[in-house]
Amino acid sequence: MTLTNAQYRLAARPVGLPTDSDWQYTEEPVAEAGDGEFRVQVDYLSLDPAMRTWMNAGRSYIAPVEIGAVMRAAGIGTVIDSRHPDFAVGQTVSGVFGVQRYAISNGSDVSVVDTGLAPAPVHLGALGISGITAYFGLLDVGKPLPGQTVVVSAAAGSVGSIVGQIARIKGCRVIGIAGGADKCKVLVDELGFDAAIDYKAEDVRARLRTHAPDGVDVFFDNVGGPVLEAVLARLARGARVVLSGAVSQYNTTQSPRGPANYMQLLVQRASMIGFVVFDYAARYPEAVTELAGWLRDGSLLARDHIVPGGIAQFPDALLKLFTGENTGKLILAL
Amino acid sequence: MTLTNAQYRLAARPVGLPTDSDWQYTEEPVAEAGDGEFRVQVDYLSLDPAMRTWMNAGRSYIAPVEIGAVMRAAGIGTVIDSRHPDFAVGQTVSGVFGVQRYAISNGSDVSVVDTGLAPAPVHLGALGISGITAYFGLLDVGKPLPGQTVVVSAAAGSVGSIVGQIARIKGCRVIGIAGGADKCKVLVDELGFDAAIDYKAEDVRARLRTHAPDGVDVFFDNVGGPVLEAVLARLARGARVVLSGAVSQYNTTQSPRGPANYMQLLVQRASMIGFVVFDYAARYPEAVTELAGWLRDGSLLARDHIVPGGIAQFPDALLKLFTGENTGKLILAL
Repeated sequence: MTLTNAQYRLAARPVGLPTDSDWQYTEEPVAEAGDGEFRVQVDYLSLDPAMRTWMNAGRSYIAPVEIGAVMRAAGIGTVIDSRHPDFAVGQTVSGVFGVQRYAISNGSDVSVVDTGLAPAPVHLGALGISGITAYFGLLDVGKPLPGQTVVVSAAAGSVGSIVGQIARIKGCRVIGIAGGADKCKVLVDELGFDAAIDYKAEDVRARLRTHAPDGVDVFFDNVGGPVLEAVLARLARGARVVLSGAVSQYNTTQSPRGPANYMQLLVQRASMIGFVVFDYAARYPEAVTELAGWLRDGSLLARDHIVPGGIAQFPDALLKLFTGENTGKLILAL
Repeated sequence: MTLTNAQYRLAARPVGLPTDSDWQYTEEPVAEAGDGEFRVQVDYLSLDPAMRTWMNAGRSYIAPVEIGAVMRAAGIGTVIDSRHPDFAVGQTVSGVFGVQRYAISNGSDVSVVDTGLAPAPVHLGALGISGITAYFGLLDVGKPLPGQTVVVSAAAGSVGSIVGQIARIKGCRVIGIAGGADKCKVLVDELGFDAAIDYKAEDVRARLRTHAPDGVDVFFDNVGGPVLEAVLARLARGARVVLSGAVSQYNTTQSPRGPANYMQLLVQRASMIGFVVFDYAARYPEAVTELAGWLRDGSLLARDHIVPGGIAQFPDALLKLFTGENTGKLILAL
């Protein structure tokens, strides 16, 4: 079966927000699966803020995407033919398939998805890397105790929305920071946060004084910048700041900005802890099992924001992450 | 016995380096000791970078010195009369007596010093709060393992010089960062550091690449600013950054500067941990016992930089901390 692939490749390293000239759209025939390989038709692409950091050169927790290479992205797809003993035609699989219509895989880091547990897109969000990031980052790194105050930034995003719900499930007081009244309403009314702060319209420090009068015990930070500084100013003694992302800094064309008041960590005997979910790969099943249980019993809601229109929508869809258009997990349907 | 006190009081909150107009020199009679009190003639004043932070208004780990109050300072003195059962005339005592010739105390947070163990000034440095800060900050917070690489900034200062020596005693590879070739020579030739970097003359990042080819496992930071950024860029996986001070920022008249590359903490799964030695008060004797043992067996050298001339020298002597004139513990002899 000869298939024609459609792909987005990295054409240039972006300065600021990625533009059309940073991408190269290509079409090419898909090779046949070799021995021990299988072919996947990608159905859904996960769009994540971290993808912006993979476009930069320089030392990070993962190698940069090379110029000319297919852009790296996680996805969910269907096995369309297979010469691999563990993967059968028709199975739904999850893996880092890249921004393309079809992928060839040898099965490395690919898992079969149980669509009986939840629809396919949920396996990119609440039961995928977003949910797993939220689970280990909050519970293993942040270590909140029942009754403690947990704050999460980008709280309406794919990771943040799960962080806040897990914290609520664990008996914490949860405050979400998000951009816009609509998102804040979702956090409180649908996801059960105790409070939400609209950083675009409200004074975050002042609102934290109201909502977290005894200080913030755990801050799960996805954004950096002024929001990080505002929360540092309100830490409780012994607080943990989980560094999961810094999306406010990913597209800046100025020098990146560090938290000017980082010495509040000393004042409050607090710590700031860098966290990469890949280190927990051996324990992913533990997270998925518990997250699936919460989904089943209704204590956890999976919010997806699915962009239709196929692969041609990729460049525009990705930007929604940085303009803050998505609520919940942003996914491109191919 | 009527005594006349001489004191430096805080007249104004400094902008930048403290100037003469920020101080008020006063003389007044010393009250008699009441029941349960004793009077101390202060012999030595501890001069510490943290004193600059106590002069600022705002939330910190200790209340600011009030305008008009005697400046806070640790000191060593002699009991000259006593109505307190636990303190006798002639005893050498250590406490936060303030920048003044005489102090009245009820014994709270005052300890009797064993001058048989080491001369009085050493009880402000290696056996005092500087040594204790180094001890708990490095061993309890930084937790270096033998063979790991430890970097310390302000390495020729009172705390840094002890941190590096303890790390060396514990079998670590030790790199000190200090200002000037003379200080760097002292670190390597006298204090047994493996290497020293002169941040005023050398490229700290490049030198760290040479001296810490496998990265930095523990960074004990006293300075902040560009030195902190340089070390963050060279962290090893799982590194600990102990925040003990940020002297580069204490006198800035611009906005304080946070580490722009703080997301290296994420890249390296590292943590940055704020630390205040006062939290270890119950365990001070444990540190003093071990530090005294190392002093006795010669593995630890106590370097003092004693400024003579009495209390009138206080404003100028304090500035030596910020111009980097001292090597070892800066002390004003009264």
